[in-house]
Amino acid sequence: MSAARFAVTAIGNAIVDIIGRCDEDFLARHGAAKGSMRLVDAETVQRLYSEMGPAIEISGGSAANTMVGLASFGGKAAFIGKVADDEFGRIFRHDIGAAGVAFETAAVSGKAPTSRSLILVTPDGERTMNTFLGISTDLDQAEVDAATVTGAGVIYLEGYLFDQPHAMAAFRHAAALANNAGRAVALTLSDGFCVDRHRNAFLDFIRSDVDILFANEAEIASLYETANFDEAANRAAADTKLAVLTRSAKGSLILADGVRHEIPVEPVVEVVDTTGAGDLYAAGFLYGLTSGADLATAGRLGSLAAAEIISHVGARPQTNLGELARSRGLIA
Amino acid sequence: MSAARFAVTAIGNAIVDIIGRCDEDFLARHGAAKGSMRLVDAETVQRLYSEMGPAIEISGGSAANTMVGLASFGGKAAFIGKVADDEFGRIFRHDIGAAGVAFETAAVSGKAPTSRSLILVTPDGERTMNTFLGISTDLDQAEVDAATVTGAGVIYLEGYLFDQPHAMAAFRHAAALANNAGRAVALTLSDGFCVDRHRNAFLDFIRSDVDILFANEAEIASLYETANFDEAANRAAADTKLAVLTRSAKGSLILADGVRHEIPVEPVVEVVDTTGAGDLYAAGFLYGLTSGADLATAGRLGSLAAAEIISHVGARPQTNLGELARSRGLIA
Repeated sequence: MSAARFAVTAIGNAIVDIIGRCDEDFLARHGAAKGSMRLVDAETVQRLYSEMGPAIEISGGSAANTMVGLASFGGKAAFIGKVADDEFGRIFRHDIGAAGVAFETAAVSGKAPTSRSLILVTPDGERTMNTFLGISTDLDQAEVDAATVTGAGVIYLEGYLFDQPHAMAAFRHAAALANNAGRAVALTLSDGFCVDRHRNAFLDFIRSDVDILFANEAEIASLYETANFDEAANRAAADTKLAVLTRSAKGSLILADGVRHEIPVEPVVEVVDTTGAGDLYAAGFLYGLTSGADLATAGRLGSLAAAEIISHVGARPQTNLGELARSRGLIA
Repeated sequence: MSAARFAVTAIGNAIVDIIGRCDEDFLARHGAAKGSMRLVDAETVQRLYSEMGPAIEISGGSAANTMVGLASFGGKAAFIGKVADDEFGRIFRHDIGAAGVAFETAAVSGKAPTSRSLILVTPDGERTMNTFLGISTDLDQAEVDAATVTGAGVIYLEGYLFDQPHAMAAFRHAAALANNAGRAVALTLSDGFCVDRHRNAFLDFIRSDVDILFANEAEIASLYETANFDEAANRAAADTKLAVLTRSAKGSLILADGVRHEIPVEPVVEVVDTTGAGDLYAAGFLYGLTSGADLATAGRLGSLAAAEIISHVGARPQTNLGELARSRGLIA
């Protein structure tokens, strides 16, 4: 196995987030389940946008956020995902590149627009996402650059892409490339409802291709159809080499080689916006893992990055995470 | 004089801000004077954007920010300004409308894009603006809706528009309409360099048409070509009925009918981004003035709104300013 050019290459939806505040009633009126991600069509995204309050635009996308977090720690990261040749596509490309992440997937003209997610943040800081998957759904096998995949120590895949048959094929292709090259394959389940929509496909893929599984409580409960967290965790540990399970305020649990590591959360003064908490936990964990930290330290790096991201609006870090981790003595 | 439909109608540049952090070296390398606004062409905005770090997009525009602040206090506000029929134009229109400000100026297709300002925030929280005046420069007299102007108690004009001959004519037209209808005309000088570029035009306009003048120290120094603040303040008081002068950390000074009101600043835990400090001071002041508060209270409302805006990124309030002012006992 040759030396890796990137610590991690991620494949995911390239999205610009449109983030605004709303009250619980607004979610109820629009049939949005708090804390979830739902896919909406162009008409619904238009209607919701016209009814929501003032917003700000920040680049997002789950796996893209993770790669930006990894780069902020000082890790070498690449991203594969699809944008259109439009204003939001230019914003996405600028922001991920300026954060130091390699992003070479070509923009597409004259088809669907760049994907966007209307993110509604309630007073408790919880985010509810309404995603219009414009051009993202178009990602296909041909756009998964083999050198970018096999040139990374870990290939990180975003579960949201399971909602798109084209992208699923691209996923399997990337996993096969990575496995053949002796690279590790990581998957994040992304969302409980998404897991519910594609449970069997997820299970098959995890058992056949995945080395590292990231999930939160709702996602792992949905995957194994049990509300018993310990049972779900044990099944995840049986299905993958390394299971990384986040539990919001209860911290996280890492299971590997029959050992359980319980990781506390990093305290936060005020939870402003939970968008990206899981994405940034994954960033910290993957940075630790790919830079030789032990699993407990990798988990604490995840907690630290998650704490930074939920203390402000948006899912891209506003602090240099490497410096932050050094100031805490977590990395040298 | 009939009852006003709006407390204030503003005319200004309709802009989306692209806000990112940079160090002092970056400003020096790009020849940008810290704290200023400079106009840049399409090529320069492209180059700067490609070299700046990750950014977020938030609706802006000086007078537009002021109207959004006024609406957040509970005042009735309208805005006249020009956007293109593009993504940034839709963002601007959504955000100002969702904030409760009437905005009826039609979007323009197939000409210049919606105006944008690259705002670089240094570690001290100071903002430096690089503005590409796309379609904004196209605002002309025909687009200044007479009913929207004469239907407001105060017409508020943004000095930045002096950089555009077309817009200057629209200004004079609006001021004439307002004066004929017995409405008050307010002007903000906007920027010291802008005043320097158009000193005589500003002085003529102030002496002939302006009732209320807003300026900061640099702007008033530039207008009267003196570094002596008291001298400049006295000259402003002689030239207008009401001079409202902001002095950053030194608070503000209001001069009217031979009386000086010195207003303290509102304390801020951390200055995150000074973008919009003057705009929001004007919002608080105009809300107070148009809702019957005395001048000292109007000034304190200005200080309060300015403190809110500099405690976070972006020039649009993240708090309901009316509730904030009530919690401080400044309004009933």
